Amino acid sequence: MSRRLRLGMVGGGRGAFIGAVHRMAARLDDRYELVAGVFSSDAQRSRDSGADLLLDPRRSYASVDEMVRAESARADRIDVAAIVTPNHLHHVGAKKFLEAGCHVICDKPLTTTVADASDLVSSADRAQRVLAVTYNYSGYPLVRQAKEMIAAGELGELRLVQVEYAQDWLTTALEAAGQKQASWRTDPQQSGVAGSVGDIGTHAFHLAEFVSGLRVAQLAADLSTHVAGRKLDDNAQMLLRFANGARGSLWATQIAPGNENGLRLRIYGAKGGLEWSQEEPNHLRHAPYGQPPRVIARGGPGATPLATSATRIPSGHPEGYLEAFAQLYRDIADLIAAYDAKTSPPAGALLVPMGKDGLRGVQFVHAAVESSRRDAAWIKLAS
Amino acid sequence: MSRRLRLGMVGGGRGAFIGAVHRMAARLDDRYELVAGVFSSDAQRSRDSGADLLLDPRRSYASVDEMVRAESARADRIDVAAIVTPNHLHHVGAKKFLEAGCHVICDKPLTTTVADASDLVSSADRAQRVLAVTYNYSGYPLVRQAKEMIAAGELGELRLVQVEYAQDWLTTALEAAGQKQASWRTDPQQSGVAGSVGDIGTHAFHLAEFVSGLRVAQLAADLSTHVAGRKLDDNAQMLLRFANGARGSLWATQIAPGNENGLRLRIYGAKGGLEWSQEEPNHLRHAPYGQPPRVIARGGPGATPLATSATRIPSGHPEGYLEAFAQLYRDIADLIAAYDAKTSPPAGALLVPMGKDGLRGVQFVHAAVESSRRDAAWIKLAS
Amino acid sequence: MSRRLRLGMVGGGRGAFIGAVHRMAARLDDRYELVAGVFSSDAQRSRDSGADLLLDPRRSYASVDEMVRAESARADRIDVAAIVTPNHLHHVGAKKFLEAGCHVICDKPLTTTVADASDLVSSADRAQRVLAVTYNYSGYPLVRQAKEMIAAGELGELRLVQVEYAQDWLTTALEAAGQKQASWRTDPQQSGVAGSVGDIGTHAFHLAEFVSGLRVAQLAADLSTHVAGRKLDDNAQMLLRFANGARGSLWATQIAPGNENGLRLRIYGAKGGLEWSQEEPNHLRHAPYGQPPRVIARGGPGATPLATSATRIPSGHPEGYLEAFAQLYRDIADLIAAYDAKTSPPAGALLVPMGKDGLRGVQFVHAAVESSRRDAAWIKLAS
Amino acid sequence: MSRRLRLGMVGGGRGAFIGAVHRMAARLDDRYELVAGVFSSDAQRSRDSGADLLLDPRRSYASVDEMVRAESARADRIDVAAIVTPNHLHHVGAKKFLEAGCHVICDKPLTTTVADASDLVSSADRAQRVLAVTYNYSGYPLVRQAKEMIAAGELGELRLVQVEYAQDWLTTALEAAGQKQASWRTDPQQSGVAGSVGDIGTHAFHLAEFVSGLRVAQLAADLSTHVAGRKLDDNAQMLLRFANGARGSLWATQIAPGNENGLRLRIYGAKGGLEWSQEEPNHLRHAPYGQPPRVIARGGPGATPLATSATRIPSGHPEGYLEAFAQLYRDIADLIAAYDAKTSPPAGALLVPMGKDGLRGVQFVHAAVESSRRDAAWIKLAS
Repeated sequence: MSRRLRLGMVGGGRGAFIGAVHRMAARLDDRYELVAGVFSSDAQRSRDSGADLLLDPRRSYASVDEMVRAESARADRIDVAAIVTPNHLHHVGAKKFLEAGCHVICDKPLTTTVADASDLVSSADRAQRVLAVTYNYSGYPLVRQAKEMIAAGELGELRLVQVEYAQDWLTTALEAAGQKQASWRTDPQQSGVAGSVGDIGTHAFHLAEFVSGLRVAQLAADLSTHVAGRKLDDNAQMLLRFANGARGSLWATQIAPGNENGLRLRIYGAKGGLEWSQEEPNHLRHAPYGQPPRVIARGGPGATPLATSATRIPSGHPEGYLEAFAQLYRDIADLIAAYDAKTSPPAGALLVPMGKDGLRGVQFVHAAVESSRRDAAWIKLAS
Repeated sequence: MSRRLRLGMVGGGRGAFIGAVHRMAARLDDRYELVAGVFSSDAQRSRDSGADLLLDPRRSYASVDEMVRAESARADRIDVAAIVTPNHLHHVGAKKFLEAGCHVICDKPLTTTVADASDLVSSADRAQRVLAVTYNYSGYPLVRQAKEMIAAGELGELRLVQVEYAQDWLTTALEAAGQKQASWRTDPQQSGVAGSVGDIGTHAFHLAEFVSGLRVAQLAADLSTHVAGRKLDDNAQMLLRFANGARGSLWATQIAPGNENGLRLRIYGAKGGLEWSQEEPNHLRHAPYGQPPRVIARGGPGATPLATSATRIPSGHPEGYLEAFAQLYRDIADLIAAYDAKTSPPAGALLVPMGKDGLRGVQFVHAAVESSRRDAAWIKLAS
Repeated sequence: MSRRLRLGMVGGGRGAFIGAVHRMAARLDDRYELVAGVFSSDAQRSRDSGADLLLDPRRSYASVDEMVRAESARADRIDVAAIVTPNHLHHVGAKKFLEAGCHVICDKPLTTTVADASDLVSSADRAQRVLAVTYNYSGYPLVRQAKEMIAAGELGELRLVQVEYAQDWLTTALEAAGQKQASWRTDPQQSGVAGSVGDIGTHAFHLAEFVSGLRVAQLAADLSTHVAGRKLDDNAQMLLRFANGARGSLWATQIAPGNENGLRLRIYGAKGGLEWSQEEPNHLRHAPYGQPPRVIARGGPGATPLATSATRIPSGHPEGYLEAFAQLYRDIADLIAAYDAKTSPPAGALLVPMGKDGLRGVQFVHAAVESSRRDAAWIKLAS
Repeated sequence: MSRRLRLGMVGGGRGAFIGAVHRMAARLDDRYELVAGVFSSDAQRSRDSGADLLLDPRRSYASVDEMVRAESARADRIDVAAIVTPNHLHHVGAKKFLEAGCHVICDKPLTTTVADASDLVSSADRAQRVLAVTYNYSGYPLVRQAKEMIAAGELGELRLVQVEYAQDWLTTALEAAGQKQASWRTDPQQSGVAGSVGDIGTHAFHLAEFVSGLRVAQLAADLSTHVAGRKLDDNAQMLLRFANGARGSLWATQIAPGNENGLRLRIYGAKGGLEWSQEEPNHLRHAPYGQPPRVIARGGPGATPLATSATRIPSGHPEGYLEAFAQLYRDIADLIAAYDAKTSPPAGALLVPMGKDGLRGVQFVHAAVESSRRDAAWIKLAS
């Protein structure tokens, strides 16, 4: 590596959650330097956020248009833009940067409509730029280990995939109290057609397909809203049928008290089972049928190559959410380097969720909403 | 208590699993003495089993008819008969003992058809005898504590009920290898219309309704069979809708490697959540919304009256499956005493699953099978 | 087995804890019937307790002397006496029954003095009767599995043995409030020279030697009392040196809030480690060095012969404290049968803690007390 | 904050573990930029490492002397030097930077002799510079929460402190195989008088005193070496007596198979207990006596101010080792800012382990070694 990538950001001003996460993730492995951003549509607020971040004040912009124009004129213009706004602004922001020749890292769900997601995929293709989507849980080393073990046939033919993502932070009507994170996520104008399904269901869906290597062929979903006055679903139960005949279920909820960020995946095949939980990400349970289950530690005995390359410190020294997020950033840097040099990226970089994965997530959201509207009828997903 | 109840048994000969469990359960609290039985339809085998159990050889019978006739003629005849055969023999056995004036303890599922189950409920009503069904997981102290806490409103209005029961012992075609437990459970002639749904799904369903106090109004089920040659389902995913508007899901499987006997219940309301797992039955997790979760120990601080009355030893001294099973036997003894004395039974005895609960379980099995046949259409359950 | 052993009991009247445990343990596997007892030194109270237990009123006695005399005169006299009184009464009771030709099952610590313990061992030898000591934790199947694995060399040469037994029930001065269990255990007249060391330290010490197969050669102990007014230790820390050069530590406390009955053993050798906790007794963690740790389930894959023979129900159906206690009773029944028939007992029966183990426990208690009096000087234990 | 602190590093070249950790920790919160270093005593290797880190080649030095001289001549000279070499080089490196007016961040143990540690404390005092010691486990939010809760009296008078630090990576003679980390840690010339006691025992000791707020008054230690040919201890058991009368024990080992990085602290007082384990750092168990234990989540309900200020992301999004390490770096930045501005540092910065804490750690190491040489005699620690 001869220099750090120059990173710009859209969103993530003072008080934002995910913008700060993206910045820490970008810093951890020292592959990026943040140099520019639109941190707010209010010019002064954007400048204030930029100042907090020690940015050159001239590179704190008040709009994407302004930023694209000004950066394009610079020799040291940004290489990559991170889009970390509420969902409804993803499409417009990502598209402009792609068209300006920037690589783009976009938060999930990629867009609020399927058409917009398709459009972004096309834009990235035309521009020959990276369009990465931060399904960040795929960055955990043991998630990758699970994927590798399954691909290597260690579980045999897969039969069952159980995935769930349970939180409790929307148990009460936080949005009515003006809490910023809750407000936009429960507002159809900003969040899109779904609440919990879009916010966390997409993570669960991606994780299930990513690790299993299977494709969901059909789903039957029952979405519900349990908090009075809420406009979008805060709970969703789904039946899943996979293309290979495996069955499964997906549960996403934001109203289950006692669940902080309970993303949990369990996959079973004819020869064994794997279980992983995001809240205890440093261990993976592997039960070969007919043998005692093993507890595989990140960085410990039995680690696979992709898992090993996605970790920084020895086993027993816990890594967490930020490290997994940083892993995507590291892999994206490798991917960008390969794009720019027109070489083959390393294996880890091929795991980065891309525009097509973002599109699939948006298709999943719309299929779930449609199924639920039709009383949990089966809806087919594109194969 | 002036004497032990005299117990007869149908089924449970050498090599049987659940018959031995019933006997240990009956012994633990010293409220019964086993005095008679039909342990096999082969007269010599029945006698051999009786001899193992130190029974009077004249009271080891070769058929239910013989046993009913002979016991009825004795002054010291049995008070109660435990029916622990494969499912298809429950109805005929239970009915004869009820009609002979015996109380009956029957394993689950109560029968293989709804009509048979209804018939047994009527028989018990006519005979004014106890017809108890061993949904044994309801005997765990902390299951009862959960029920009491919910009834007392500690979770607020309930919103979500997630129940699952995962095993792995049928991951391969054990029935093809002649394993006795597997053979009858996967044989429609002996097990009825369902496999995993009847064998373990009924436990999960009863537990969910028992603890929540809610009634499932509708279910949509996707049953599947993953082991080649198997005749009944070995996996089932269901969506649940409860009468009060709560949602939930039920998962029952016998092919998930690494799961021994994973019955797990999670219930969430507007004010808090409760989680309990059968494999770690001595602790109950209670998460009051907005406070740190508490880990309530069986016999420890915070125990409710029904939980306290259902335990034998101090916290930290683990109780398990047999103690929970024994609790049903103890409660049934209290219930029989109350029936016989025409008095009110103690509170614990009112928790005993009865014929009507057994009937509901059979209705659940048939609803699940019907839903699955109709591609997971919603099926209403009787309210 | 042609008949049940006739069991008499000394102690264990209304309100007692351990007496009730012994009775449930004796019942579970149906190898005993309780027929006689001295449940209290008050004749009426003893009779009342006997009546609760459905005993023949003539066999509820008011003193050991009376019981020995009357039972000796009966054709159906007791085979075995269980001594479940406070510690200071063990010696006199056990001795009289041994001399009368009864087998004896005695709670731990065996006696309050080393001389008394030696005397009992001699008495049993002279009488050629079983003198079993209920170090009940050795009855857990996975404790036995650990012992077998170590004996088979699976850990290699042992290096470290860490054992601890933490409780919290004496965090406050319960004895000052008249709580019966606390009162005698903290009274030197009834408990002997030690508090926590005798009550639970002896269990920890026995478990460590039983499983490891090693002998403690020296110990250095620091006993302390933290509750005002308490007369005996409520906490003890010890350094251990084993005869083979292994090192270890032992911690016993009854004042650690949040610990219910936390007996935990960890053993490490050159080739691997084993960890077991009494509060989660159905799993044993085995870490072969350089491989992922395995979680061995009671009754599951990898179970050793002695573990398998010490369990009743399949894995995933938790067994607990009572089953482990019952295992000792079952093994003792086998041992008595072998004594009486002058045959070799089965392997499990050879694991029963006997008088010599009880003696060693008393030696341990006195060594710990002496070490602590000498400011944690090293004290040698008999080899 | 108007600019990032300029950081120099001594040690931490290619292949080093802890140097890379320090750099990630320094980056995470963006308070530092690495600008200079002596990454190896070999000039070319130092430059290569510097190039990996995108440093100006002129600022990759071959010796501390060269670095001090060159940096002192620059207007943009380093503000702070991180010393991450093997132990025996800490003193000389730290002293030169302190004397040159740099703040210093030094790894633990601070030095190999008590005299050297005292000397560094004096040097820092004279220079009026920060001398911080990276007892990094004190940076975990819930460690700080535990400290705050205890200081607030939530446990009442403390009675027991159990601390342990178990690893397994030195189970075999890695040093004989040339493994770099093992080689210097087991070499008295580089590591000092102790092996496991210095490497991890010092962490355990600091954690116990940091959280409890107590001081160890005396210790009795039994150090042992279990791997043939090893020159320093690989296991240590200690009895602890605290100044207030509390008792405890400390266990440090690097040969316990199945233990990755098992630092665990348990503290008990008259009113409750706290338990924390480094491998599951996002939860703290609090057992108020007589109430069910609570599981306090990092960032969740019940978080104290210092815990909240030491975390970056919401509960359920695990933070780990790097975040805790980064917390020290963040706090040190605040402390340096306060030193430079001669203002009061924020509360978190007052928790940074300083030279005096490093000195105490070295005193602890030497006391443990002396005690063990005297057959575990009690050794007093300075009060």
